Amino acid sequence: MIDLRSDTVTRPTASMRAAMVSAEVGDDVYGEDPTVALLEDRVAGLFGHEAALFMPTGSMANVLAVRSLVAPGQEVLCESAAHIARAELGAHGAYSGVTMRTWHHPRGQVDLAMVRTLFAPDMGPFFVRTAAISVENTHNFAGGAVLPLSDLRDLRDFATGVGASIHMDGARIWNAHVATGTPLRDYGAIADVMAVCLSKGLGAPVGSLLVGSRDTVAEARIWRKRMGGGMRQVGILAAAGLHALDHHVERLADDHAHARLLAAACGVDPDGVDTNIVVVPRPDAPDFVLRAADAGVRVATVGPTTVRLVTHLGVTRADAEVAAGLLAGLV
Amino acid sequence: MIDLRSDTVTRPTASMRAAMVSAEVGDDVYGEDPTVALLEDRVAGLFGHEAALFMPTGSMANVLAVRSLVAPGQEVLCESAAHIARAELGAHGAYSGVTMRTWHHPRGQVDLAMVRTLFAPDMGPFFVRTAAISVENTHNFAGGAVLPLSDLRDLRDFATGVGASIHMDGARIWNAHVATGTPLRDYGAIADVMAVCLSKGLGAPVGSLLVGSRDTVAEARIWRKRMGGGMRQVGILAAAGLHALDHHVERLADDHAHARLLAAACGVDPDGVDTNIVVVPRPDAPDFVLRAADAGVRVATVGPTTVRLVTHLGVTRADAEVAAGLLAGLV
Amino acid sequence: MIDLRSDTVTRPTASMRAAMVSAEVGDDVYGEDPTVALLEDRVAGLFGHEAALFMPTGSMANVLAVRSLVAPGQEVLCESAAHIARAELGAHGAYSGVTMRTWHHPRGQVDLAMVRTLFAPDMGPFFVRTAAISVENTHNFAGGAVLPLSDLRDLRDFATGVGASIHMDGARIWNAHVATGTPLRDYGAIADVMAVCLSKGLGAPVGSLLVGSRDTVAEARIWRKRMGGGMRQVGILAAAGLHALDHHVERLADDHAHARLLAAACGVDPDGVDTNIVVVPRPDAPDFVLRAADAGVRVATVGPTTVRLVTHLGVTRADAEVAAGLLAGLV
Amino acid sequence: MIDLRSDTVTRPTASMRAAMVSAEVGDDVYGEDPTVALLEDRVAGLFGHEAALFMPTGSMANVLAVRSLVAPGQEVLCESAAHIARAELGAHGAYSGVTMRTWHHPRGQVDLAMVRTLFAPDMGPFFVRTAAISVENTHNFAGGAVLPLSDLRDLRDFATGVGASIHMDGARIWNAHVATGTPLRDYGAIADVMAVCLSKGLGAPVGSLLVGSRDTVAEARIWRKRMGGGMRQVGILAAAGLHALDHHVERLADDHAHARLLAAACGVDPDGVDTNIVVVPRPDAPDFVLRAADAGVRVATVGPTTVRLVTHLGVTRADAEVAAGLLAGLV
Repeated sequence: MIDLRSDTVTRPTASMRAAMVSAEVGDDVYGEDPTVALLEDRVAGLFGHEAALFMPTGSMANVLAVRSLVAPGQEVLCESAAHIARAELGAHGAYSGVTMRTWHHPRGQVDLAMVRTLFAPDMGPFFVRTAAISVENTHNFAGGAVLPLSDLRDLRDFATGVGASIHMDGARIWNAHVATGTPLRDYGAIADVMAVCLSKGLGAPVGSLLVGSRDTVAEARIWRKRMGGGMRQVGILAAAGLHALDHHVERLADDHAHARLLAAACGVDPDGVDTNIVVVPRPDAPDFVLRAADAGVRVATVGPTTVRLVTHLGVTRADAEVAAGLLAGLV
Repeated sequence: MIDLRSDTVTRPTASMRAAMVSAEVGDDVYGEDPTVALLEDRVAGLFGHEAALFMPTGSMANVLAVRSLVAPGQEVLCESAAHIARAELGAHGAYSGVTMRTWHHPRGQVDLAMVRTLFAPDMGPFFVRTAAISVENTHNFAGGAVLPLSDLRDLRDFATGVGASIHMDGARIWNAHVATGTPLRDYGAIADVMAVCLSKGLGAPVGSLLVGSRDTVAEARIWRKRMGGGMRQVGILAAAGLHALDHHVERLADDHAHARLLAAACGVDPDGVDTNIVVVPRPDAPDFVLRAADAGVRVATVGPTTVRLVTHLGVTRADAEVAAGLLAGLV
Repeated sequence: MIDLRSDTVTRPTASMRAAMVSAEVGDDVYGEDPTVALLEDRVAGLFGHEAALFMPTGSMANVLAVRSLVAPGQEVLCESAAHIARAELGAHGAYSGVTMRTWHHPRGQVDLAMVRTLFAPDMGPFFVRTAAISVENTHNFAGGAVLPLSDLRDLRDFATGVGASIHMDGARIWNAHVATGTPLRDYGAIADVMAVCLSKGLGAPVGSLLVGSRDTVAEARIWRKRMGGGMRQVGILAAAGLHALDHHVERLADDHAHARLLAAACGVDPDGVDTNIVVVPRPDAPDFVLRAADAGVRVATVGPTTVRLVTHLGVTRADAEVAAGLLAGLV
Repeated sequence: MIDLRSDTVTRPTASMRAAMVSAEVGDDVYGEDPTVALLEDRVAGLFGHEAALFMPTGSMANVLAVRSLVAPGQEVLCESAAHIARAELGAHGAYSGVTMRTWHHPRGQVDLAMVRTLFAPDMGPFFVRTAAISVENTHNFAGGAVLPLSDLRDLRDFATGVGASIHMDGARIWNAHVATGTPLRDYGAIADVMAVCLSKGLGAPVGSLLVGSRDTVAEARIWRKRMGGGMRQVGILAAAGLHALDHHVERLADDHAHARLLAAACGVDPDGVDTNIVVVPRPDAPDFVLRAADAGVRVATVGPTTVRLVTHLGVTRADAEVAAGLLAGLV
């Protein structure tokens, strides 16, 4: 069975497991886990930020990142299919008291004209205030679409001009980096606070990081504890993340090639596939998922008429070719 | 000074005050105020619903109405300039844990294609679920625009088909009713829960009502108490509302005529003015407000480049003509 | 039927209604209602604070007062039968994210030794921090018990020493003032923020005020709007409050005398009745309520084995004597 | 340096690491991690409950356990120094909208008379309702005190009689079990929902479980995702928990013996030390911590005048004896 449901399904490799088993650890709630500290420093550095904070999940990293920018009763703007809007079970409202307004773009892109239209400045005690704008890069539900750096820079200029902050959901920022060659630091320069994930394309079993200023991270550390995310000897997991940074970034190019191959097999234009996710419009999505499983390929729906294929560390070139053949027979 | 900032600025008339002073009252927290009960029954009946609940403000009525349909962690869809999204200080997130996604329409209208795109069915424990769709009729920040009944009926059909509820912010539903002749019951038939206001066009000093089923209202009564909205001998205010229903509904047609007159004076097409609100695009909005005040007319901004004029019970035909003359000189 | 369920059941007198009908009003959301402003200034002055803010209910005043002192994730300490803990439907948790710990005193008094035991200083990012201590004076569920000024001053000294704030729920502070002769300013000097009520002993139909510093009130004004408590021409209600301050404070002594008279009739020691509330322990509380109603006296339960009698503006000396006779026959 | 600050500081043993490195894993968000499933089934069985759910921390397990029993606006009763009240940063209020009232017991015990006094039945839409009572066994801040089974059974009887639920914070239930010989199932029979921890006395690096009915766990799975606690190939950590259950339960008796040895050295009556925690009253607590560290023993404060010593897997008999000698010299 070839599993293309998500890049979250990867299992740690033998060498990643070896790194985990020998990790030096301490009580990270007390700030004493050296492996976590190493990972946090390294990731902060990659994005040119001061500090980072290890989290059990990307959802928690996003929730605490947005909270660090947006107070209860304020709002964040984002694209309407953003992960923070669609796939975090309303946590930003339920747990942070934050409200959202959204623009829509079929490819999950920044629509600066709409951002300008939506943006609500601080107009006194009657209106909600836009405290932050959030972007997702790559954009999951838009099929792993990359947000061009030039668009992000224009957004940064706008945000700076109006006094708003930028949150970047960089769960798959590594894919954007590899697909475009844009340095991670250039992405980092766009955002006030980022969330980046180790357990999707990078193949670590668990873990994300919030990336930002020293003050933001110090405050987020308290909120992480309050949210039940303050783990103890978690260097075990951080070691997997360090290993992934050493060994699993550049290989994302293979995932991207595999995704284009699968796209072609499913009748989707490979040129529209920026990274490792293929969105296949299917009026019969739930049925297609069942038929694919019968044929030996697990795929997922992300809406009643949308099938999603995701390539990852656990899918070899040979797997991709086999899956392409099987799926081509179902389309 | 002619005050066109909002239809919330009306002062109660002498006969309304007389109605208030002689109101029979009781402790409404105990459900014993006969004047409140009379008002609640009457308003419920006007919209063809089972029950209604008096509230101190339209904001509270909207917050409790949306909460009655949308649980924490679920979402409501609405137009991006809706009052619930822009002008309630993020209360739906901060107090109800509800999240929103929005479509944009320059006239605040239902965009059914976008609603279909945004709508998120219950897809299991990973995705937010769209529990309700909210419409505002008339739409304040779109310049008092009326939502056509045919659009609302199409939305109702869609919502019923997918198992979503509809909230109608009817703060100015009376204006829509008078402008179009649509019976209030026809609007009521669209919504599962409505909020309607007595202190805007109708000229009561204070008060709104949540309108819905008996069960919804019973539950909202508890949440109203929790939210600090359970007032005691509030029949004093309910009496003003009853008086307004008797005397101030049909006269809204005058406000609408005055608004068109002001629009023309400000270079805005009167045919685009559905009811009592005129939105005047002005790059110099804050400055224009100051100059108008100097000239003797108070107007408001609802954005950095938008001036708003609102006609109401306190603006006579003569006032409107004077204001039109003064504003024409400033444009 | 003589109604002793609560002092919230009072109906406005004819002269109070006359004051309301002639009140000068404006849009108080815009800060333009002169009668509200007058009331707010006067009440602030009575307690020696800088500012006050009119609210639809005492519950909202308490919720916003505590919120002004205690951030989400911090705690307030209070007596276990305090109104904020028992009778506001958990609003401080549900709406403000505030947590509580409680001490117990059968007479609702300050137990400084327990406050010292419970108090949690800021001990870093692991423990909840006690941001405020709340007292209720008079204490409703302890039978209108007065909190002695000396105890309050000792608490103030403790709180100042440890950097905590004090909230006073002064819904019935007027009763404490009349019963003891303690100047309102002396009570005001104890608290950082107070809530005081016009619609209980003072007999206004609706209204409470939050009392505190100018900054606190400015911030509370925004939160009042967010909570749906920003009413428009509410000077109608404020006028009732001003009238009550002129005419209904000193007469509370009558209510206190009536309460002692009722206590004696019910077998409760009148010396234990500080003000206008009599708590009668009855194993058969719900049944007693029914029998009293049959006899012509409405009383309430505040627990499965506790009956409460409350005297107020609507109960004359003659009423009290009749009720005492009737109740004596049931005990 | 001998570390007695907490039993959270343990590092995984070599054999525990070996178990982790070879764990079979899957995507646990999809419910496909076999090692997690094994652990959840095993822990549920130990306590005689239907199901269990792995969590990143004990705090999250407690927050979701209490939420499963107590709706926003309802309350939970607990002892005033309970971990849920003092050491979870107000999460139950901030994240679940739950409010608390507390009784105080110097040894953290159930005070059934006070529970009866505090308990608030459902009395209609004015009063908060007590939905659950929480107990902590062993009780951390009371020095690892055990709650006798007979007291717990009396509480269970009371709770059942009044229709309230019971939450047990069993972070250290293993210590209670080993200290008293009470079967885990007997503790499990007391509670509707429990939280138990693997990373304190049991020595796993990370992980706790919520234990309850199948329905409760299904619902908690959604809230865990919303709270950012849904991890992927987390069987790595679950394997450590399984190893701990096999190898680290019975040895807790050693920790208990070591604690009594340390108590005697610090002038605390060893008979008052039920398990692995020694609370030492010290007016100079912060200074004592510094002096102990200089001497080679790390201890912690849990209040301005309270030092806490905790024994655990990382403290051998020899360590305990050395520490006892060093601390005796400082007392």
